[in-house]
Amino acid sequence: MKKKKKVNAAILVIGNEILSGRTQEKNIAFISNWLNTKCGITVSEARIIQDDEKIIIKSILILSKHFKYVFTTGGIGPTHDDITAKSISKAFKVKYEYHKEAYSILERYYGKKKFNDGRKKMAKMPRGSKLIYNPSSAAPGFMIKNVLSLPGVPSILNSMIDNSKRYLVKGLKIHSKTINLYTVESNISKKLSTIQNKYKKFVEIGSYPFFRLGKIGVSIVTRSNSIQKLNSVNKDLKRLIKEKKIEILKI
Amino acid sequence: MKKKKKVNAAILVIGNEILSGRTQEKNIAFISNWLNTKCGITVSEARIIQDDEKIIIKSILILSKHFKYVFTTGGIGPTHDDITAKSISKAFKVKYEYHKEAYSILERYYGKKKFNDGRKKMAKMPRGSKLIYNPSSAAPGFMIKNVLSLPGVPSILNSMIDNSKRYLVKGLKIHSKTINLYTVESNISKKLSTIQNKYKKFVEIGSYPFFRLGKIGVSIVTRSNSIQKLNSVNKDLKRLIKEKKIEILKI
Repeated sequence: MKKKKKVNAAILVIGNEILSGRTQEKNIAFISNWLNTKCGITVSEARIIQDDEKIIIKSILILSKHFKYVFTTGGIGPTHDDITAKSISKAFKVKYEYHKEAYSILERYYGKKKFNDGRKKMAKMPRGSKLIYNPSSAAPGFMIKNVLSLPGVPSILNSMIDNSKRYLVKGLKIHSKTINLYTVESNISKKLSTIQNKYKKFVEIGSYPFFRLGKIGVSIVTRSNSIQKLNSVNKDLKRLIKEKKIEILKI
Repeated sequence: MKKKKKVNAAILVIGNEILSGRTQEKNIAFISNWLNTKCGITVSEARIIQDDEKIIIKSILILSKHFKYVFTTGGIGPTHDDITAKSISKAFKVKYEYHKEAYSILERYYGKKKFNDGRKKMAKMPRGSKLIYNPSSAAPGFMIKNVLSLPGVPSILNSMIDNSKRYLVKGLKIHSKTINLYTVESNISKKLSTIQNKYKKFVEIGSYPFFRLGKIGVSIVTRSNSIQKLNSVNKDLKRLIKEKKIEILKI
């Protein structure tokens, strides 16, 4: 059996409405969680950019070079500001043309009479694209090289992301544990730093303040490919918590 | 009077917890809205990166070169994974050291006895930083060159962002109008494209599908520096809506 490796990905969010603050971005957390739990893939970077051809092309070229996969969201609908498919075609220097199967899926979905130019546009993709089927509103996403393009509307994206799984190499699963403590970060920062140094290469320790029912706390999140190492770190953490007499919040 | 120009900014979100999908990112939309409405500054790009010194340095250097301002969020707390201030110091090749005023603010806030190493760390910044005061939890943010660093906890960030206003050159105010329509994008995409072409350089038209109480709709958002141009576009849009007999949703 081939040994699994770490596999990474980047997310490219395309849309002025996110950058203007009009719309709250929600797909990054969803895709990250999905990649993490279903595929053992870690998202290493995310970028949010404008609906601008030059910027899309540049971002696609950089990210597709540096990461195993790139997921794009947004810009694959029927209107003039939906330029993701065209821009990716230009980035990879392939034709931007009707995808036969996508065309017939959409034609069947809308009916010949209502299959107007805007709707037809959603069947245009970079030549050689593989389809990511869309069970909720028909218009498929696509994969070309290592780039997977999904729509921006969260409910539609959520419904179709499982259909991209077949195209992905699975990575090592990342395990994580969270302990929620009623304390402040600066009370434990020194010891936490010592523990992090001890497990430097194997476990990532994150510390995140929270407010809950008027009380201040810190979530300690540990993440690792190895369950054994994760358990050892958590033993060290439990010792620290006992020493400092910190209350644990059970959720 | 000096004529105001377009001023842009980038946002750099630093934090593994956002990329892992554990925490929903909320600061980008808040900062964008604030910059837009209070300062006439447009956010042109946002990036979310890991707590990794090399990546922070690289991102700071690229973004600070390409944009008028860079806002960073996250990584300025007391724990080992808070490495934003140190990384920015390295990026700009300046000393990472105690900021006198920040040190005394924090010492006063915690009291001499409770002012431990973790807390002292929050007074360390790139040499030459200007402070961004924090009315809710004392630990200040800082500005060095064109980079402004704020904390990641949204409630704290929200409370202190007004204190960064004094350091910013104001840009041209961007006006926007939204019309919510009970229709589908592909019904109006062709005409919308014609209108967008007519006002190419002056007005940006965005089209965003929505679902509301079981009905499908589209929000048409127009944005421009010129109120006159914005009004003209909206007249054209009203004509299109009348022609197509589309129902407008009043909110």
